[in-house]
Amino acid sequence: MSSKTATVDELRNLIRTSQFPPQSKLPSERDLAAQLRVSRSTLRSAMGALEAEGEVWRHVGKGTFVGKRPPEGREVFPLPADLTNPTEVMEVRLILEPQIADMAARRATINDISFMKQCLEKGEAAKDTATYEMWDGALHRAIAEAARNTLLLALFSAVNAIREHAVWGQLKEATLNDQRRRRYSMQHKNLVRAIERRDAVDCQRLMREHLAAVRDDMLNI
Amino acid sequence: MSSKTATVDELRNLIRTSQFPPQSKLPSERDLAAQLRVSRSTLRSAMGALEAEGEVWRHVGKGTFVGKRPPEGREVFPLPADLTNPTEVMEVRLILEPQIADMAARRATINDISFMKQCLEKGEAAKDTATYEMWDGALHRAIAEAARNTLLLALFSAVNAIREHAVWGQLKEATLNDQRRRRYSMQHKNLVRAIERRDAVDCQRLMREHLAAVRDDMLNI
Repeated sequence: MSSKTATVDELRNLIRTSQFPPQSKLPSERDLAAQLRVSRSTLRSAMGALEAEGEVWRHVGKGTFVGKRPPEGREVFPLPADLTNPTEVMEVRLILEPQIADMAARRATINDISFMKQCLEKGEAAKDTATYEMWDGALHRAIAEAARNTLLLALFSAVNAIREHAVWGQLKEATLNDQRRRRYSMQHKNLVRAIERRDAVDCQRLMREHLAAVRDDMLNI
Repeated sequence: MSSKTATVDELRNLIRTSQFPPQSKLPSERDLAAQLRVSRSTLRSAMGALEAEGEVWRHVGKGTFVGKRPPEGREVFPLPADLTNPTEVMEVRLILEPQIADMAARRATINDISFMKQCLEKGEAAKDTATYEMWDGALHRAIAEAARNTLLLALFSAVNAIREHAVWGQLKEATLNDQRRRRYSMQHKNLVRAIERRDAVDCQRLMREHLAAVRDDMLNI
């Protein structure tokens, strides 16, 4: 088996075993090449093969992402991240996401709910903060997708992208600890259960409580 | 007095007497030149003078707008307007704007409230639908600005821009009549009064009722 074919299989396996949520960004070419112990040119050619299979897609200048390329216009639109701040972002999340959770309770498919449960499990099993946050983000996005409103999802994605931006500085790393992670995991679990029993009112309340806890922890209120 | 100086004065007057709300788009060069009975080159040179005074600013490819150029990054960011529809837009407005009105009740300055009242008067005095809608839009924006959250204002602006997009088709023109305009004007007035007495709960309720009426009229629910 050629080095390229072996690398394609290893990469496919890495992605399929859900190390990375759909539409998440893969590690850099250099890091992946080091992890799989292949040259960067072998890695690049294996990525090309996976791209052709629709397992990953490349966003020029931004990196390689898991899954199929989103339809034109569905990518995150840029918000003026340099003009906002964590207090504003949490205020906006507390407006959008409780309503999103309410809608998700009424519109989520069984498939949506299965994926939310998968995000919960992966988040709980996460051995480091970065992996936990990846699945935390994937869960919130899955709920937003389940609300079945393209425009609302675009707003959610734009706000969400800011959380990965310099605006946050070291806030997340500095304020997330094991105790808080356990609390958020419990809140996430209750939320997904409420979506499953289609309790829109409870979903709204649970999401509001969860985000208020995140805000208070993060901004030291 | 040269033709240019006279045109500058007439144009400045047209803008200052608030024919057009701040940041609204001026009519085309051709229409303005016809209205003021000057050549297009005279008009263009008068516009240049007003731009230098900070009375108007030009957005390349989009037209000329009233007021000062917004700071970099404060312009409306584009949303995927071709992928959404009026039902989604009204659903999103019903999530954002009642909360915005709630925040405006607690954060609006006296100046904000004066400008809201001016929008009410101009809207009521409007002789045609286009002018009414311009002041209707200016009032909703004034409330969003009074909520004092840059990120929320950016989301509001993006959603608002969609209303001027082809997605609406003839919906607005086809569903707005005198009776509805009177009802909306009354709702707007009650809303501004509630902002003035700082009644956040009532503001939230009044904005929700207003937008639910607009939605029901427009989508024939």
